[in-house]
Amino acid sequence: MPNVVVLPGDGIGQEITPEAIKVLKAVLKDSSLKLEFENYLIGGAAIDEAGKALPDDTLEAALAADAVLLGSVGGPKWDTLPAQQRPELGGLLAIRKALSLFANIRPVKMLPMLVEASTLRPEVVKNVDLVVLRELTGGLYFGEKGRKTNPPSAYDTLIYSDEEIRRIVDLGFQMARQRCGKLCSVDKANVLESSRFWREITLDVAKKYPEVELTHMYVDNAAMQLVRYPTQFDVIVTENMFGDILTDLASMLMGSIGMISSASLNGKKGLYEPAHGSAPDIAGKNIANPLATILSGALMLRYSFDLEDEAKLIERAVESVLEQGYRTTDLAKPGDKVLGTREMGDAVVAAL
Amino acid sequence: MPNVVVLPGDGIGQEITPEAIKVLKAVLKDSSLKLEFENYLIGGAAIDEAGKALPDDTLEAALAADAVLLGSVGGPKWDTLPAQQRPELGGLLAIRKALSLFANIRPVKMLPMLVEASTLRPEVVKNVDLVVLRELTGGLYFGEKGRKTNPPSAYDTLIYSDEEIRRIVDLGFQMARQRCGKLCSVDKANVLESSRFWREITLDVAKKYPEVELTHMYVDNAAMQLVRYPTQFDVIVTENMFGDILTDLASMLMGSIGMISSASLNGKKGLYEPAHGSAPDIAGKNIANPLATILSGALMLRYSFDLEDEAKLIERAVESVLEQGYRTTDLAKPGDKVLGTREMGDAVVAAL
Ligand SMILES: CC(C)[C@H](C(=O)O)[C@@H](O)C(=O)O
Ligand SMILES: CC(C)[C@H](C(=O)O)[C@@H](O)C(=O)O
Repeated sequence: MPNVVVLPGDGIGQEITPEAIKVLKAVLKDSSLKLEFENYLIGGAAIDEAGKALPDDTLEAALAADAVLLGSVGGPKWDTLPAQQRPELGGLLAIRKALSLFANIRPVKMLPMLVEASTLRPEVVKNVDLVVLRELTGGLYFGEKGRKTNPPSAYDTLIYSDEEIRRIVDLGFQMARQRCGKLCSVDKANVLESSRFWREITLDVAKKYPEVELTHMYVDNAAMQLVRYPTQFDVIVTENMFGDILTDLASMLMGSIGMISSASLNGKKGLYEPAHGSAPDIAGKNIANPLATILSGALMLRYSFDLEDEAKLIERAVESVLEQGYRTTDLAKPGDKVLGTREMGDAVVAAL
Repeated sequence: MPNVVVLPGDGIGQEITPEAIKVLKAVLKDSSLKLEFENYLIGGAAIDEAGKALPDDTLEAALAADAVLLGSVGGPKWDTLPAQQRPELGGLLAIRKALSLFANIRPVKMLPMLVEASTLRPEVVKNVDLVVLRELTGGLYFGEKGRKTNPPSAYDTLIYSDEEIRRIVDLGFQMARQRCGKLCSVDKANVLESSRFWREITLDVAKKYPEVELTHMYVDNAAMQLVRYPTQFDVIVTENMFGDILTDLASMLMGSIGMISSASLNGKKGLYEPAHGSAPDIAGKNIANPLATILSGALMLRYSFDLEDEAKLIERAVESVLEQGYRTTDLAKPGDKVLGTREMGDAVVAAL
């Protein structure tokens, strides 16, 4: 039986992961594939109980698992630790690197009933349906970093190898081919050497995909265009740091990051998590929005287990619950029927 | 007589700089200060006529000048040159570095009559009044860069010295003190060593400004917050690459980058330019919007010549022209009175 390692993590992570599991179990009820779920510690919870953000048994289990479902990590309690030991670096970045999850995928698809939640005008965001593909294990995040004296200074290195660029860009072309056939590669080739290299390799990979329309855009312009005219995009592919900024920005088109799921992949092996954080301020109150985690569960079925039909069932169930006017507080407007975290999970199960 | 070096550059730069000069001359008509304007080559125009993007006489004149007014550089004609020779790197970045213009200021103030031009909802952008202060001569732009073999790779270095951070952050505090007293320092201290250094120094500089409220924000969150709730910001200070992305994003709140002026400063010495590019597609048609360049002229009076009253006169004249319903094509909606580039310059002069 395929095995899923569940890492609830901190804050609302503890509340939203059970809802995703509930939905996954429900959708697989009549399927021949069953999944086994096993909980492990990560992040602040792991620091408190096991002395470090990514304990050895968590890492071993994750390496052996077929897929990983993550809630969220971090919180003020651990913010005073040295950066490398904190839940984010010591937990999240460490597991990304250890599992070689080089491709982070965040789909941003506007649902008609959420158009009103966006701070952008309805006509601008109405038909948004794009995916940001972010390189996740290279660049400034993992390059050599340190301090120098004389003069006192600090540095980080943005470095990419041919191979690192090639595999993520290739995936971008594959995704574009399965969608609307448009790939936009975002870089800063007018200034950065790593971006010029990125562009050269992208042009080389492009030869294999003559059916995909490739464009290049500078990152400053891409940030503008996402706000100005987001429906021009199909698949965006970019390096780690630019991707960090653009994925969050793209999420904001939806009004709330509470709806954005993500998959971090290395082939079929994947870690699935909501794009939002651990929201310590609302943790433990049964008011967090579990939909991004539930939708991350759908991505898990799609990418790790090839269960496209079941993935679509979950996505449709989420849409139907929203169509019925049910909302968690982050999305609620006057007149909406507000549900708690658990109740939203139940509503999705009922809609399946 | 103080001397202003004018660098029209390429594309619409040739059309918009004369309008700014026209307005500057008009506003100083009855003033005791007169400015002398002298044109020099930069960018593609300089490559064509003098063989390089920043000719020696241009550089000498700029170094000796009291202020520099720039149009815009670049265009498809020069895009096939090696990056270092192109108008952007060889011209714009080179002059920024040569004049040590470490502080780039872009004010983003929503004018009531332009609220409809934004792709964001009116209630979100209505009262936006913020300034992005971007470090302009350090970081990834100017750190060591190159290629490596084995494995083939390319790198750029994000490096900041104590002194480089201190002077820009200090300016941020000064600006915040003169405005609403709020400074938001944007970094990625949960991942980057240079950002942790930035934060330490920012906290140190903060001791001198107890009256300013300092906050820190991660760059991915800052990109989101600019779209979600932009009126929370007063002054934003950040490093070069993040600033490149966030200034363009912030400009987009106004609907068009055609209204955004900028000042690049080292003390009183400054280079003033519109935030937009050379727009080769509309060049030579007398339809470009000269207002960002005219407003950059106002910034010149403010920052290089301490003429706050005259700067305000220009800003009010621009507002009054817009209030009368005059627009260039980039801002026009049905019912507006559309003006050409020269006619818009004349209208501002008339409104002074
Ligand atoms: C928590 C942080 C280190 C992380 C990142 O920057 O990758 C987060 O912002 C994300 O996008 O997943
Ligand atoms: C043209 C380019 C090199 C420049 C930059 O990145 O600084 C531009 O985007 C800007 O913001 O002035």
